[in-house]
This record gives sequence, C-alpha cells and structure tokens, in this order.
Amino acid sequence: MSFPGGYQGKVLRVNLTEKTFSEETLSREVARKFVGGAGFGIKYLFDEVDPGIDALSPENKLIFASGPLSGTSTPCASRMAITTKSPLTGAVGMSLTGGYFPVELKFAGYDVLIIEGKADKPTYLAIQPGKVAFRSAEHLWGMNTFDTQEVLKGELVDQGYRIACIGPAGENLSRIAAIINERRAAGRKGVGAVMGSKNLKAVAVRGNKAVSVADNTAFNEAKKEMLKSMKDSPVLYSEMSNLGTPMVVEATCGLGIFPAKNWSATGQWEPVQELGIAANNSRRTGREHCYMCPVACSQMKLVREGPYAGAMSVPEFESMYCFGGQTGVDNIDSIIAADRLCDELGLDTMSAGVTVGFAMELYEKGIITQEETGGIELNFGNHQGMVALIKQMAFRQGFGDVLADGVRLAAKKIGRGSEKYAMHVKGLELPGYDVRGAKAHGLAFATAYTGADHNRGYAFQEIFGIPIPKAVDRFAIEGKGWLTKWNQDVRTATCDCPTMCAFLLDMAVPATATENSARLLTAVTGFAFTPEEVYQVGERVNNLARVYNVRAGFSRNDDSLPERIMTEPLAAGGSKGSYISREELSTMLDEYYAERDWTKDGLPTPEKLIELGLDEAVAFVAGEVEAAAAKEGN
Amino acid sequence: MSFPGGYQGKVLRVNLTEKTFSEETLSREVARKFVGGAGFGIKYLFDEVDPGIDALSPENKLIFASGPLSGTSTPCASRMAITTKSPLTGAVGMSLTGGYFPVELKFAGYDVLIIEGKADKPTYLAIQPGKVAFRSAEHLWGMNTFDTQEVLKGELVDQGYRIACIGPAGENLSRIAAIINERRAAGRKGVGAVMGSKNLKAVAVRGNKAVSVADNTAFNEAKKEMLKSMKDSPVLYSEMSNLGTPMVVEATCGLGIFPAKNWSATGQWEPVQELGIAANNSRRTGREHCYMCPVACSQMKLVREGPYAGAMSVPEFESMYCFGGQTGVDNIDSIIAADRLCDELGLDTMSAGVTVGFAMELYEKGIITQEETGGIELNFGNHQGMVALIKQMAFRQGFGDVLADGVRLAAKKIGRGSEKYAMHVKGLELPGYDVRGAKAHGLAFATAYTGADHNRGYAFQEIFGIPIPKAVDRFAIEGKGWLTKWNQDVRTATCDCPTMCAFLLDMAVPATATENSARLLTAVTGFAFTPEEVYQVGERVNNLARVYNVRAGFSRNDDSLPERIMTEPLAAGGSKGSYISREELSTMLDEYYAERDWTKDGLPTPEKLIELGLDEAVAFVAGEVEAAAAKEGN
Repeated sequence: MSFPGGYQGKVLRVNLTEKTFSEETLSREVARKFVGGAGFGIKYLFDEVDPGIDALSPENKLIFASGPLSGTSTPCASRMAITTKSPLTGAVGMSLTGGYFPVELKFAGYDVLIIEGKADKPTYLAIQPGKVAFRSAEHLWGMNTFDTQEVLKGELVDQGYRIACIGPAGENLSRIAAIINERRAAGRKGVGAVMGSKNLKAVAVRGNKAVSVADNTAFNEAKKEMLKSMKDSPVLYSEMSNLGTPMVVEATCGLGIFPAKNWSATGQWEPVQELGIAANNSRRTGREHCYMCPVACSQMKLVREGPYAGAMSVPEFESMYCFGGQTGVDNIDSIIAADRLCDELGLDTMSAGVTVGFAMELYEKGIITQEETGGIELNFGNHQGMVALIKQMAFRQGFGDVLADGVRLAAKKIGRGSEKYAMHVKGLELPGYDVRGAKAHGLAFATAYTGADHNRGYAFQEIFGIPIPKAVDRFAIEGKGWLTKWNQDVRTATCDCPTMCAFLLDMAVPATATENSARLLTAVTGFAFTPEEVYQVGERVNNLARVYNVRAGFSRNDDSLPERIMTEPLAAGGSKGSYISREELSTMLDEYYAERDWTKDGLPTPEKLIELGLDEAVAFVAGEVEAAAAKEGN
Repeated sequence: MSFPGGYQGKVLRVNLTEKTFSEETLSREVARKFVGGAGFGIKYLFDEVDPGIDALSPENKLIFASGPLSGTSTPCASRMAITTKSPLTGAVGMSLTGGYFPVELKFAGYDVLIIEGKADKPTYLAIQPGKVAFRSAEHLWGMNTFDTQEVLKGELVDQGYRIACIGPAGENLSRIAAIINERRAAGRKGVGAVMGSKNLKAVAVRGNKAVSVADNTAFNEAKKEMLKSMKDSPVLYSEMSNLGTPMVVEATCGLGIFPAKNWSATGQWEPVQELGIAANNSRRTGREHCYMCPVACSQMKLVREGPYAGAMSVPEFESMYCFGGQTGVDNIDSIIAADRLCDELGLDTMSAGVTVGFAMELYEKGIITQEETGGIELNFGNHQGMVALIKQMAFRQGFGDVLADGVRLAAKKIGRGSEKYAMHVKGLELPGYDVRGAKAHGLAFATAYTGADHNRGYAFQEIFGIPIPKAVDRFAIEGKGWLTKWNQDVRTATCDCPTMCAFLLDMAVPATATENSARLLTAVTGFAFTPEEVYQVGERVNNLARVYNVRAGFSRNDDSLPERIMTEPLAAGGSKGSYISREELSTMLDEYYAERDWTKDGLPTPEKLIELGLDEAVAFVAGEVEAAAAKEGN
C-alpha cells in the first residue's frame, strides 16, 4: 500500500556525531494526527528530545518538516517548520520559513529531516534522494549566508541546490541566531544557534521526485476555490503584492500600538511618514516569490543614495518596528541596511532590533555608558550605532557580546535594574505590536508555546478589525481567552502544519480557513478531514507543545508580559491610557485556560489529552495535576 | 558543410535601440584568421565601430567572444573577451573574464555576441538558444552585482542561468567600471561604463548545446600533452592551486618592484609580512574553479575577526598592490573588504586602487585638503579612507565623483600639477609592477593596445626569471623590443584568442606555447594550424588593434610611461637606482617598431598588413605613412 498523497513517506535521520544517516518510514498515524510542519516537529521533539537538556548540547535535535501541501501545486505552500528546543526560551522552539528549500526537501523525497548529535568539526550536508554527504565546512565557517549559498552551489557543481545555512551569529552561538535559506529566514527562537552548536554550517538539498496527490479532481476543485478566495480578498493581491507587510506600519500607528523607543514612547512617536507605505515604496524595487506563490509579498527594497547606498533587502513590517520605531530610528535606509546585515550574518532581525532598542534605553537612562559600548553612541535614533552594534553582536565583538543572546541574558549580564527594560516573554523579544492596545494579541504573546510570537495566534481581529469569527473590542478583556485559543489553534492547523503561508489565513480565508484546509488536505492526502478535525489538529499540537513546556519547567507564572506592559499606561495616541494590568492578564489567562480545558495553573488535563489522542503526554501531566490539586487544597 | 569544430558558427547581434536581434553565420575566414576571443572582438570592432565616436555613445558596441576551445573539455579554456572602444583610454578596450558565463554563451549556440545601440530604459537580456528576451531592469538599477545575479536567477526561474552584469559604477558611467560574472570580472578599460551607457544592466544566458570537436583522437592526444605539461610545471599545481597570484607579492618585493605609495616609495616599503603569502594564507578559506579548470587559482579569502569581519573575496596579487602597497595600506583585511566592495559595485579594483593612491599622494602633499575630500582622511595607509572612497566612487558621491573616472580625468579636474602623480599609460592605471626594475614589462605597458596592461605582454622572463624564449637582464634595454613583440604576440595568439587562461602560458607551456595551441586548435577546429601560423595570429591581431588606435588618433607619443617612471630613479630596494629614461624608452620603442616592421612613428606599413592578410587595414595607414614621410622630410 502506498503512502497517502502529499507525503513522500520518509523521514531522513542524520547523526552528525556518527556521520550516519538512515531513512525511516513516516508513520501514517503521525501523518493523520499531526499533518506536517510544526505538527511533525513538535511530535518528534516531544518524543525524542528531553526538555531538561541544554538546548545547545548535542542532545538537542533540529527537525525540518514541510507539510503535505508543500511541493504540490497548492499556492503558497512552500513552508517548512524548523523545530528544536529553543536556546533562547528553553521552551519549544519552532520557526517557519518559506522560499524554495522547503519544497526541495520534499523533492528529495523527505517529509522530515531530523538532525542529531554534533559534528566534530564544521560540516555541511549535501542531500540528494537516498544520499547524504557529510562535507567539511571549515572553509565556510565565518562566511555570511549569501556567500555560503553561492559558494556551495559552485562547490556542488549544481546551481539547483537549495541551501539552508547559518551565518557568523549561529556559529558564535548567539541565542538569537537565525537559519537562512535563499533570502528568507527561519528567524526566531535561536534555531541558528542550535545549528551552530552542532557545527553544522549548512544543509544543501537537491531533489527530483514529484509530490503526488491522492485525488486530482478534488484537488483541482479545492485549488480553484482557494484561488477564488485569494482573488476575492480585498487586500491580498491589491496590497500584499505591492506593499507587503510594511503596510502594517500605518495600521499599527493608527491604533497607537506601533512600538516606539523600546515601548517607552508608543503612541507619542509615530513615524508614519518616514517608515510607512510611501517611504517603503520609495525604496521598492520589485518583489520575490516563494515557490508557487502568485502573491509575492516579499518587497525588495534598494537604497540608491546616501551613506547606505547599495543596501538591498526585503524588510518586513517587523523590520520597520524593530530597527525603526522601537529604536527611535526613522532613517529607512539604515533599516534596510540593518535588515540586510542581519540576513547576511544570520541574526533574527526582531530580536536583534529589540535588543539594540533595549541597549539604547539603558544608554539614555545612563545605566550603560559610552565607555561600556566601546565608544558607540547609542541614543534613541542613532542609526550608525545600531548598524555597528548588529555586526558586533553577530561576531560577539565588544559590547555586542553582551547583547548577542537577546534582552533577557543581556539584562542579566548588565544588572543594575536593566531587566525592567527587557521586553520579552519567556526570553523571546516582543514583536511589533504594543499589546497594551490589543489585548488578545497580548494574551497570545503571553501564552504562545514559543514565547512572545506574533505568528502563533495573530489577533487580526484586533489589528485589522476583521470581524471573523466575530467582531471584538481590542481593549476588552472578556472573550479574549476564547479568541486566543481560536487564533492559536486555527493558525496552527491551517498554516503551520499543512504547511501554508499564514497570510492566506489572515487575508484570504479567515472565515473558511478550516474548511479550505479540510478540502485541500483531503484531496491531497486522501485522509478524509472535516473542518472540525482540522481545528482539532491545531488544538492537539498546541496541547502537546504545552506539555513539552510543562516538562521543561514552564508554568502559569511564565505566561506573563513585560513589566512595562503591565504597569505603564500608554501616554498618548490611539490607545492612550490603556495597558494590560496584572489583574487583567490574570483574568484573561483564567478564561484561556478554561477554554482549553486546562487547570487554573495552565496544565492540560489527562482527560483533554486523551480526548485529543495524546496518550503519550498523559504521564507527564498526571503527577503535575495531583500536585497542583494538593497545592490548591493547602 | 558543417562549421569547423569548436565553433557554433553563429554570431548573435542584439540591437538595444530597436529591441531586435538576429543570428549571423560566423565567417570561416574570420575564424581561421582571428581564431576567437580578442581576435574576434578586435576584428568586429575594427569593421564596425568608428574610432572617432564617443565611447559612451550608442554608436559604440560591446562584443563578447569566446574562442573555439571554450566549451570543449580543454582545461582552463572558459575565457571570454569583451571588446569595445574604451571610454577610459579612447583606444581598443579589450578585457577578459573567466568563470562560467563564457562557456554558457557557447552552450547557448554563440561564438560572438554583439550588442549595439542603447536601450531607452534599464534593460537586461535573457538569452537562450535562438531566443533573446529584452526585459526591464529598472528594478535592478542601483543593485550590486551579487544581488543582481541572485535576483535574476530567481526571476528567470532557472538557477542555471549565468549572468554578466554591471553594478552602480557602470550605471553611473564610471570610466573604470567593470563587468562582473559570477565572482569574476572583465575588469579593466571601463567596459562596464559602456554597458551602463547602453542602459544594459545584465546579460543572462542559458544554453544546452554541446561544442563539437573536429578530431577527437587528436584532441585527446593534445589534451593529454597539455595536462602533462601542466603536471610537469614546477609552480602550477603546487603554487597556483594553493597560493594563487598573491604569491607575486614576494616575487615583486624581492625584485624591488612592488609599487609603494603611488610609486613614490617602491623599494623603500615592502610589506611582505603583511601582504605576502603567509598573510594571504592566514585568510585563505578555499578556492574557486572556472569551468573545467583543474588548477583553481582563485583563492577565497575570508576575514573572521576585527572591523572587517565577514568580508570575503578572491583578491589577486593585483588587489594586494593596488589596495595595499601603493596606497600604503598594510591591513590585509581592509584589502579583502575593498576588493569585495569593488566586485559588488562593479569597479575595476586596479584602477580604483591606483586612483585612491593617487588621491592619497595629493593629500599628503597638501594638493588636496580634508575639506575637499568631505572629511575623509587620506594619508597613505588610511584603510578606512580607502574603503569609504571606493563606495563614493561607485556612486559618484562627494569626492568620489572627482575620482570616479580614474587618475587621468581626476588630475584634469583637480589640476594644480596633479597630473605628475597620475600613474597611467593612455589613461589606463598602472598594474602592480614598478617597471623601473623590469624594462621589457615597461615597454609592454607603453605599447600595449589597451594602455598599461600587464596582461598584454607580461614579461615573465623579467619577473620570474624564466629563461624562455631566452634569459634576459631585466635592467637591460637591448633586446626588449624583440622580447616585447614576442610576449605580446604569443600571449594574444595562445591565450586571448583560443581562448585560454594566460597562467598556462606563463607556468605550464612557456616553451611550447605555440606548439601546444597549434595542436589543440587543429584538433578542435579541423583547421590545420602550424605553430608559426599561431604566432602570426597574435601578430595579426596586434597589428589590427594598432591600426584601430592609429585611426583613433594614437601615435608614438602615446607609447609612453608616467613621468615619475621616466625621471625618478628608485631610491632603495632590489632595483635601487634604476628607472626608464625617456632616451631608454625611445631606444626600446625604436627596436620594438623595427621588430614589428612598423615605421619609426609606430605605424604599421601597408606591406606588413598585407603580409598578415589585413587588407582591410591598409587604407587607414597608407595616408598616414605618406604624411609621416612628408613630416620626416621637413
């Protein structure tokens, strides 16, 4: 019996310590229950990686997984999850990327690539169907990610290879290091540091195997419906194809939630003219497609004049807030240069930018001095200082070494009360939304299994006013537990697992996301999915990730927000006066846990896990639940 | 009857003004007489481009041509000449490049690509067999050469395209702009500015046609002999594969001819420790191959520490002298960074470096001030100033605009006696040999049809002491006319036309170069070449180039050297006391012209041209000869 459509049916397991590899058959049950992508990553992480290990030890694993839609002609499905225990948060680290590598891995015959152990010296993998070559990467060590890809294509004498690699940041074990493929990043949670800790510079992959589809007629029908939804979207082609995510600068400034000066001045300083649509479009020079994507949201920006002339990058909204607003920098050219530098050096733009903004606030407040920064001036708005620091962070030079692991560890090293200005949840730096004016979004940051992650439950209802599944008041507390669960589970189920670009959920099929996914998954895999089953996949994956984090020591206390968000009301702008008090957060958490059928301490119950078919997880919470009950009884 | 082996038999002519293209049959006679590469380029230039035109006008043409060996399995034959009227010298501009583009053009079915006219807006060409697409390059305008190649491969949805392109320097009509393909450059004589003047950002080419060989048995035999010569070379694999050209730093310092501080301190400052083999190897991180090259002389250098960390490049010896010795910079990391910057921005490293060194001497002498440089400190040795200026030159920013067209035009703009420090011949900046201690090399600089060009008659006899065709005294004058003709004609015939890497001539087959080429060319093309005929090809091409230059207004007066070389004896080092006086140069020129059967004014005679089968050139010199005779009679 052949494997379901969409899957190649194979897991490639590579052991860097032993320099061995093996092919395993993908379990049909795992495929049915976890679909792919983040689902596969979290399932394998749960089963194989002890949450107690040091994330940068050889015991950690890196799990690359695309979903069943990847490599088919489904539009916007060239996505891949990279899952590991995060060295930045200590929790599940799951980061998604697009481009071409994800489908090339499928074309090479693999749904999942699991990388174990640690090479004794810098190594790269060259993967073809049924073959893995372990090759020295000593010559590539220290090389930027763009050069690495170019050099490897030459070295492998086949320009068709697709390559995921780390830059100096990952090699230097920066806990905010990214993995870069083409011009795209699996940016967050330090996945690049894990790759660096394994002495793995790059994975090059070249395939030639098509991805089959179980029912072509149904698939064509499903695709047609999806393409129609995309065309009907009021924003997908008209806005995303031409503006990309930077258009969110306007939206967030309009709501008074564009973070300014390390969240100290949100609503008071809204550089729309400098960083918004018009400014972005003045630097726009085209766009890039992921495989089989008709939208092409990646907007290439090129600086043609001034001191940053020649810098080219595809900065997202997140680059505008992290190198812009929240550092007080309104020089868009420097933001493009900083974004490019991070891609080359393999640093997560968001964490890097927030960390620079954090240092700027310390500098402004006199907590750190120019002597400490090695002469770099770090006032808010100093773009030269920002660009200089980014490079130092990747190479761990000078003051950059203090900042290279993100705000939480930097605050720990600096001390002097600096933790107060470290904007993170569970160690992951905050995305570009001041959640004091978007409270479900704040709850999502507090509860996402990856830390403050805008992509694990994006509250588009609050940010864009989309009334799906219902209209919400962004300042309200009530109902946000329910909404956050919905946002998390739907996004996990319809984007992170199948795998599919999240923008389609937000912009094309918000109302019919589970139906759309059910149709596509059924047609492609031949498994009969109902929309309800799709939704349940999201719930299943979020529950399993939660149990993993519980095993790693996380509890309700960690479902929190930075002190500033909980104590300082916004002083001006469209969300003036608003904040998420500790009590409000607590109320929202209560509702959220209840909606999830978790205990008041945020523990999945055995019953819930069994309902979701997660029998493997029960043992890990049973004791915890009793202990919690005993504690409540006290 | 099919065309001779080695050739595809087709010339692709593209008119950018009309957006048209046509295929022409390559003339068998042209193939037999000019072989390929530079021979084809100069022949088409002579026939089609009026020497009186402005080189940056639409009337100029860009002629890309590989030779018959390119695309066969001949090792080291992936070379291509780009010929045009040079905007830097006003003379024949011919620049060679290697890598993969040259063979891909052959695989696309073309021996020659002639680009005419001027596009009305930024354009790139996508060439496949029988097809030329004219595509907008407006989005690529301002983009660096590495990004341009990466973006185009994506845009053309085929990573196998090979791309030759310009950077901002070429767009901004810098007369020292290069054309870059992969990591290689057709660097000199401003070929990039001609491309820019045509609004042509890039040529992308993708082929699938094999290159045939007339006699496989003979070819295999010829190849075997050549590979044996290569193996027998005492330096080719042992040195070039591991050290590359930077090993010449030691050699030139040993002879006291490594140019220092704009030729003001040659012999007095020899930074062997800082820029020589050991220093280079401390940054070495691998090597790159051209197509079918077993040598791989391109040594990748990567900076892993300090302010230039992350910079990666393949600097040749020429980068060591131009960004090193002659600017007084001994920081090898900054040289790697400068080299990389030039490749990205599409500037010729040599001309750019010499121009910076020129500005440094003016700065040191107080001829220009810090105010004039826009605040950049430009003392000899200031590597930060050097790197900053390079970027400004490519973008024509600030003082960079003054320097962007090389030393001759910069001296003209600056005035104040600065021409005295402008080290060039015919406008082309001097290569990395202080010819005061290598006089045939000096004569080659003075007489090369391209200006001061070390690759048009490299006196390896003087630099490396190789006694082929005979031992020479590098300080002697006598015999240098003869030697220079030999060096020029042999190199043209055995390298620039077939096309073949020049290093093989210097290092593997110096004694049997014409025999080696005759064997290979006969086997590949089926034309029966004798060694004497091969030699004559070189003579023919050099004569035709000379007539072109005569038509462009060049005469004996232009076969000169910079004033410093002719008036200032070297003050120290291995060539202490030596210089090439005006009288010495005159004596050498007399001998050289006599050896060439040219008049005392350096004009080819009608008899010589007819002997060489250059009937098409006779009309252009007949009048000149009479006029010269009349003048002499006065």
